[in-house]
Amino acid sequence: MSMEQVNVNIGLLGCGTVGTSLLELLYEQREAILQRTGLEIDVTKVSVRDLSKSRNVPIEQSLFTDDPKQVVESAEVDVVIEVMGGIDPSRELISKALELGKSVVTANKELLAAHGEELYALAEQSGVDLLFEAAVAGAIPIIRPLRESLVGEPITRIMGIVNGTTNFILTKMSDEGMPYAEALEEAQKLGYAESDPTADVEGHDAAAKAAIIASLAFGGRVSSSDVYVEGITEITPEDLQFAHRLGHCIKLLAIAEKQDSNGEESLCVRVHPSMVPLSHPLANVQESFNAIFVEGDSVGDLMFYGRGAGGQPTASAVLGDLIDASCNIKRSSSASIGEFRSIRISPVADLETRYFLEVEVDDRPGVLAQVAAVLGEHNVSIQSMEQEGLESEARLIFITHKALESDFQAAIDALDELQIVRSIGTVLRVIGID
Amino acid sequence: MSMEQVNVNIGLLGCGTVGTSLLELLYEQREAILQRTGLEIDVTKVSVRDLSKSRNVPIEQSLFTDDPKQVVESAEVDVVIEVMGGIDPSRELISKALELGKSVVTANKELLAAHGEELYALAEQSGVDLLFEAAVAGAIPIIRPLRESLVGEPITRIMGIVNGTTNFILTKMSDEGMPYAEALEEAQKLGYAESDPTADVEGHDAAAKAAIIASLAFGGRVSSSDVYVEGITEITPEDLQFAHRLGHCIKLLAIAEKQDSNGEESLCVRVHPSMVPLSHPLANVQESFNAIFVEGDSVGDLMFYGRGAGGQPTASAVLGDLIDASCNIKRSSSASIGEFRSIRISPVADLETRYFLEVEVDDRPGVLAQVAAVLGEHNVSIQSMEQEGLESEARLIFITHKALESDFQAAIDALDELQIVRSIGTVLRVIGID
Repeated sequence: MSMEQVNVNIGLLGCGTVGTSLLELLYEQREAILQRTGLEIDVTKVSVRDLSKSRNVPIEQSLFTDDPKQVVESAEVDVVIEVMGGIDPSRELISKALELGKSVVTANKELLAAHGEELYALAEQSGVDLLFEAAVAGAIPIIRPLRESLVGEPITRIMGIVNGTTNFILTKMSDEGMPYAEALEEAQKLGYAESDPTADVEGHDAAAKAAIIASLAFGGRVSSSDVYVEGITEITPEDLQFAHRLGHCIKLLAIAEKQDSNGEESLCVRVHPSMVPLSHPLANVQESFNAIFVEGDSVGDLMFYGRGAGGQPTASAVLGDLIDASCNIKRSSSASIGEFRSIRISPVADLETRYFLEVEVDDRPGVLAQVAAVLGEHNVSIQSMEQEGLESEARLIFITHKALESDFQAAIDALDELQIVRSIGTVLRVIGID
Repeated sequence: MSMEQVNVNIGLLGCGTVGTSLLELLYEQREAILQRTGLEIDVTKVSVRDLSKSRNVPIEQSLFTDDPKQVVESAEVDVVIEVMGGIDPSRELISKALELGKSVVTANKELLAAHGEELYALAEQSGVDLLFEAAVAGAIPIIRPLRESLVGEPITRIMGIVNGTTNFILTKMSDEGMPYAEALEEAQKLGYAESDPTADVEGHDAAAKAAIIASLAFGGRVSSSDVYVEGITEITPEDLQFAHRLGHCIKLLAIAEKQDSNGEESLCVRVHPSMVPLSHPLANVQESFNAIFVEGDSVGDLMFYGRGAGGQPTASAVLGDLIDASCNIKRSSSASIGEFRSIRISPVADLETRYFLEVEVDDRPGVLAQVAAVLGEHNVSIQSMEQEGLESEARLIFITHKALESDFQAAIDALDELQIVRSIGTVLRVIGID
């Protein structure tokens, strides 16, 4: 059996950490790729911001340009790889490439979460590929399984640890009792967090990924602005200790869940710190690792685990897409992402979940009864309770049964009005194994 | 954007648990699949052994036949799905279907491990798909990531818990201290083990899957007969306790590992019980769940976790392949599995790994020195040792540094000759996190 050889030329937009790793990987794996797939992949153009910067990459200096349009418009380029990030000018460059009939591989979650649908449609019209495995959970193959293996599966919920920075911080806070600020500082020192960590710690990065995952898992239009977001900045080492004592850990989860409100199907997409039972596979995802947990009626539980970021892991994901796009060129085909229908996004107020609730109260008889009564009046029933005495006050820790978010929030407001309640402490949603 | 609709007719070989689940899933998901992919999938023929058996499946009775050739040869069938299992007559039927230009989806690990290469070549020649996601680790998408996402990745090792029966038995033995025979009985009661459990407990089922995974991960020809196999029948609850005390658990792992012996690349493919550190993600794979752990130079560590068997999860994997094959028909394409080169399979004697070794000895001074001397003479160096006194004897527990399997086996033989050694107890290979 002899394999037909095909030459594919690529143009690279951006040559930072991921771009550099990709060029190295392509160089090292050239022979192996040729042997396994019949593809001869050549780099023909690379756009960079600063042409004068010296770069230690295994390609000729003459291939660099500081004009990204040259990459996109070059007749010599079959596949465009975008690893610059950001919305502008990536959006325009990718659109142009697709219009010119070039397949595109991108790692740009921000762009896809904001303008994915427009770009998917453009790729479909031009009959080319738009692949983006690296945009969510770095090296973990999750996009392809969602697009292909699971496209016929009735998925009910998908939950992911999709931000390595926050998972690293929470791991440090949990394992070493570090306060948030100290853990963040360590993450910054190690290069896991940026000097302005807002996008990570406030959950916006995870929200962009949640939107992409939700679109693919449920075949519906979801953009970042549909995602309810809470970050991890309020979490304390004490919360983590409490969680642990109750057999849980705390993880920042991106969740997309099918809901059925009065017979109408809707989707609740959210990012928030969640209590996860220690026996759940997501609980064992430590440090900066990522994982996506998929629940389907037929497939059961699936989990995909791996490196969510970093030059080499991300380059590996980009290379997988590049080979896929190149194979499609070889066989004059392209992968369809299918059609996204519009889907009702339900507000977080409609969510039904269990809650962890910490209330500080006066330490005197009858207090628990009063608190329990308020919860009961708002249809929040208690699954378990622990009380601990502080100096002149007491701390009540509740885990509730499933309750409606709007009921629960109303209960919190009512509790806050009670004379005997000194303060409402930490409130967390609890992920069950059901 | 309106999607072109395409009708695809399928023929099903076999209608047991997986076939029945697949027919139900196709029926329930018909609309969703049409909407997402534009595919109208119809079942046109189903072959069964016993036509008189009543079946509760959502298709017409008239579609059943007891002649599988009719399914394969029917001009109405575009894609053949084989869920009968066994080598004969599946091999002949699948070959015929491929020759006739029909794509094939199969869950038959035994057949692929024995005759995969011949069938892959046939599919390639005919320009059709031969897809088999369900053949390894049931519902877990591992074949597609290996064929596509990771085809350019320099994979160094792949380790899997790919047999749910033995993982269930080991979990019971570990968590509840059950002896092997009792755990096996419980697995049989729950339907996790067959009445003749040999293929599972002796590791042959895992070996077939190891061969398939190794072929795809390393692009080399590997068949079941290349796989070194040890089962779990000799493992005792005591071994599991020891392992736990040393911070490990015991899992039956299928391992394919790249080795470099004197500059020549080779592959060591094996199935045996292994000691796995409790902090390793594979250690948390409990009950009948499966998982595949992939280590690559660029991608880092990846793990894929999910249900390894069962009608519904397996049907979900078959459906993913079926949609893939159908999409390829729609775009007149097919997935190439690439070319497998011949690769040197290194014997297990060339393996370098760490070992757990239990030796029962006379309880008198100087014994440890004698045992340590024998190990040292055979280039086996000790990483840690524990001694415990029994009645008139003592038990020595060693974990070694990496040693050559042939050296280690020679050391065992020499130890067995020592007067002071009463018996060699459990010997296990230890997986490191390195």
